[in-house]
Amino acid sequence: MMKLLLTGFEPFGGDTVNPSEQVVEALGNQVVSGVQVRGELLPVDTGRAPQVLRAALERHQPDAVVLTGLAAGRPQLTLERVAVNVLDFRIPDNAGVQKHDERIEPAGPDAYLSSLPLGDILRAWKAAGIPGYVSDTAGLYLCNQVMYVARHALGAEVPCGFLHLPANPEVALGAPRELPYLPQQELNRGVQVVVETVAARLRARTATETEGVTGL
Amino acid sequence: MMKLLLTGFEPFGGDTVNPSEQVVEALGNQVVSGVQVRGELLPVDTGRAPQVLRAALERHQPDAVVLTGLAAGRPQLTLERVAVNVLDFRIPDNAGVQKHDERIEPAGPDAYLSSLPLGDILRAWKAAGIPGYVSDTAGLYLCNQVMYVARHALGAEVPCGFLHLPANPEVALGAPRELPYLPQQELNRGVQVVVETVAARLRARTATETEGVTGL
Amino acid sequence: MMKLLLTGFEPFGGDTVNPSEQVVEALGNQVVSGVQVRGELLPVDTGRAPQVLRAALERHQPDAVVLTGLAAGRPQLTLERVAVNVLDFRIPDNAGVQKHDERIEPAGPDAYLSSLPLGDILRAWKAAGIPGYVSDTAGLYLCNQVMYVARHALGAEVPCGFLHLPANPEVALGAPRELPYLPQQELNRGVQVVVETVAARLRARTATETEGVTGL
Amino acid sequence: MMKLLLTGFEPFGGDTVNPSEQVVEALGNQVVSGVQVRGELLPVDTGRAPQVLRAALERHQPDAVVLTGLAAGRPQLTLERVAVNVLDFRIPDNAGVQKHDERIEPAGPDAYLSSLPLGDILRAWKAAGIPGYVSDTAGLYLCNQVMYVARHALGAEVPCGFLHLPANPEVALGAPRELPYLPQQELNRGVQVVVETVAARLRARTATETEGVTGL
Repeated sequence: MMKLLLTGFEPFGGDTVNPSEQVVEALGNQVVSGVQVRGELLPVDTGRAPQVLRAALERHQPDAVVLTGLAAGRPQLTLERVAVNVLDFRIPDNAGVQKHDERIEPAGPDAYLSSLPLGDILRAWKAAGIPGYVSDTAGLYLCNQVMYVARHALGAEVPCGFLHLPANPEVALGAPRELPYLPQQELNRGVQVVVETVAARLRARTATETEGVTGL
Repeated sequence: MMKLLLTGFEPFGGDTVNPSEQVVEALGNQVVSGVQVRGELLPVDTGRAPQVLRAALERHQPDAVVLTGLAAGRPQLTLERVAVNVLDFRIPDNAGVQKHDERIEPAGPDAYLSSLPLGDILRAWKAAGIPGYVSDTAGLYLCNQVMYVARHALGAEVPCGFLHLPANPEVALGAPRELPYLPQQELNRGVQVVVETVAARLRARTATETEGVTGL
Repeated sequence: MMKLLLTGFEPFGGDTVNPSEQVVEALGNQVVSGVQVRGELLPVDTGRAPQVLRAALERHQPDAVVLTGLAAGRPQLTLERVAVNVLDFRIPDNAGVQKHDERIEPAGPDAYLSSLPLGDILRAWKAAGIPGYVSDTAGLYLCNQVMYVARHALGAEVPCGFLHLPANPEVALGAPRELPYLPQQELNRGVQVVVETVAARLRARTATETEGVTGL
Repeated sequence: MMKLLLTGFEPFGGDTVNPSEQVVEALGNQVVSGVQVRGELLPVDTGRAPQVLRAALERHQPDAVVLTGLAAGRPQLTLERVAVNVLDFRIPDNAGVQKHDERIEPAGPDAYLSSLPLGDILRAWKAAGIPGYVSDTAGLYLCNQVMYVARHALGAEVPCGFLHLPANPEVALGAPRELPYLPQQELNRGVQVVVETVAARLRARTATETEGVTGL
C-alpha cells in the first residue's frame, strides 16, 4: 500500500496548542483513499526538526509528503508555493535559537517549488465548500525550513509540500489580537481533502505507469 | 412567554447568500432557554428596512432584540457597541440608493450605545469556545441604520443591539479576495449563545422584579 | 482676531515622540489664514487630560478646536466622525490607569458627532495632493475622550473635532511591526490644510453674520 | 566609471502614474557616489519586458542593477528577498495577457535570491531616517519576472535585486481604498540611499580587488 507522510508541529510562541498537531492526531495512521497515512510530530527546534524529519522520511519511505503548520493570522487554509533557502526568525524557536539571515543548505539551490498538485487541491477544496488559496511565502521560520529540507531530501517525483493552517479556537482565544480562526474539525476536513487529492494523484500515476505511459 | 426578535438581512453587494439570513432560518421560531425567538428578514433597502423593522417591533412586542448582519472581512463574531446617526454608503443598497452623509433621524441623538449585555455575551462565548469581540463601529450602511432605528424606537429597558457575522464558506468562495470565514453551523452556534445569554438576562430580571427589586 | 485651539498629545505606549506634539510645535502660535492658532499639549492621562483641555478652552475661548493625536497603523490622515461616551483602554495611560467600559460623562449623551466641516477638509486635502478620509471610530482611549470632552464643553456653533495622524518616521523606526508612516513635514502640511479650511469657514460665517443671515 | 542600471515600470492596472517611473526620471542619468546611474523604463508587458531589460543589460553592461516597481498597499519601501520561477497574474498586463501558473524560464532554477547587500541597505535607510524592510515575496507579476530575468541573465558577482515602492499621493488619491503612501520626494530619497549603498559596495570591492583579494 502506498504511504503518505503527514507532519505537524508542536506548540510554539506561547501557544498551548498547535492545530497542526491536532490534525496529525486526527488523520495520522489512517487509510485514506487507499493510501496509508503516517503521522509524525516535528519539534519547533531549528536544529532538531530536520533530523526528526529526515529520520521519518527514512523510516516510512513515503510516496508523498504533506507537511502542516500554523500560520496564525491567515484567513483560510493555504498551500505554500515555494520554500526558500533562508532562515530568518522573528521569534526564537522552542530551544531559544533565533536565526538571522542564514542558509538552510549552504550549497543548496535558492528555493524549491512545491511538488504537490496545487491546482487539483484548490479544485477539490472548492468542491468540498472549503475556501483556500496558494500562498507565495511560507515565512522564514520552521515551516519554510522543513518544506525546504523535505524537498531537498526527496526527488521531484515524490509529491511534497507544505500546508499552512489558520488558528483554531483555542489559539484565537489565547491571542492578544483578534485572529481569524476555524473550528479544528474544519481544519481536519481541509487537510483530509488534501490527503485524498494527493492519494488520487498517486493512484492515477500508478495506474498510468502500469500501462507503460511516462510522466504526469 | 417572553419574546426575542432576531433579524437578519437578505443578500446584497453581489453575494448570493447572507449568513445572517441563514441564522434566522436556523434559529427563528424556536424556544431558546425559555424565550420565544421570532425571526424576521430585513431588506437591504434603506427606505424599506426601517418600515419592516418597526412593523416587526409592533407586531411582536419583543422583550429583547438581536439584529444580525454580514461584515465580510471581519475575522470573528462581533458585537457592535454603538449605532451612529449617519448614513454614508460605500455601495448602493439593493434598491440602487446610495446615501452620503445623511442623518437617519434628523432630530435624533448623535448615537445610541448597545443595550445588550456585552460583557455577559463575551464571557458566554469564551465559555463555549467561541472567539469574539466588541466592535467600535458598525459602519454607516444598513446594519448601523437598523440598530439605530431599533434603539430609537425602543426604550432603554429593552435589551437591543447588533451582531456582525463573518463570511460563511459560500460568501468566501465567491469573493474576489481571501476572506476569513466560519462554517454556517459555527455562526449559528455563536448567535445561539447570544440568544441564550440575553434570555438568561431577561429571566433574571423578571425574577428580580417579582421580588420587588428594580433595575438590572 | 479669531482663535483656533490646536492640541496634540505627549508620547505614550513606549514611543519616544508623538507626531501630534511636533504638529503643535510647528503650527501653534502662528497666524494661519487670518486666524490665531493657539497650541496646547495634552497629557496622556485620563484623569488630567480633561482638566488641561477644559482649562485651555477657558483660557483661550477659541472660535474653533482641532484636536490631534497619533493612530499608529493608520495609512493616511483621518478625520474622526464621532466621539463615543465610553472609555475602554487596550493599554494603560501614562499614569498607569487602564479604564474598562466606563462612561466619560455618566449623564452625557452616548456620543457627539464632529462639528468640523469634514467635506470641506476632504476637498481641500485632495486639492493639496493629500490623501485622507473620515474614520468612523476614534477608538476608546484618550483621543476619543478629549474629543468627547471638548464637544461636551462647547456649543454646537464652535467647530470642533479630532484628527488622527499616522506614524512619523521615528515612530515607525521604533515599532515592532511595519507601520505606514509619513514624513513629519507632510503631517504638518496636512494639519495646516485643516486649520486653513476651518479658518476659511469661520471667516465665511462671520461675513455672513455681519450680513444678518443665520447659520452655516 | 562604474555603471548602475536603475529601472522602473510604466503605469498599469488603471493607474495614471507609476512612482517607479518618477524615480527613474529623478535619478536616472546622474552620477551618485561616483557611480553612473543609467535609467530605463520597462513596459508592463510580460512578453516585451524581458526583451527590453535584456537589451538594457547588453547596452549598459552595468556593474549593479536596481529594479523598482510599485506595490500599492505596502506601508514602506521594501527590498525583495527572492524572485520565483513562476508567472501567475491577478490582473492582465498592459497588453491584456494574464499568465496562470507558468514558468518564466522552463529550464531555470526554481528561484533566485537577491544579490543586493540587503543588510547594508537596511542600515543605511535607518541612518537616513527611512523605515523599510525585506519582503519575502515579490508577487508573481511583472516585478517578480524582471527580477528573475535579470538574476538569470547576470552572474552572481553583479549585485542585482528588486525594490518595491509604496503608492505615491497620486496613486493613493486615485485608489478605491485607503492606501498607505509616501510623497514622491521621500520615495526618491529612499531609492537614492539604495543606489548610494550599492555604489559604496562596488567601490569597496574594486579597492579590495586592486589589492588582490577576491570576493565580497
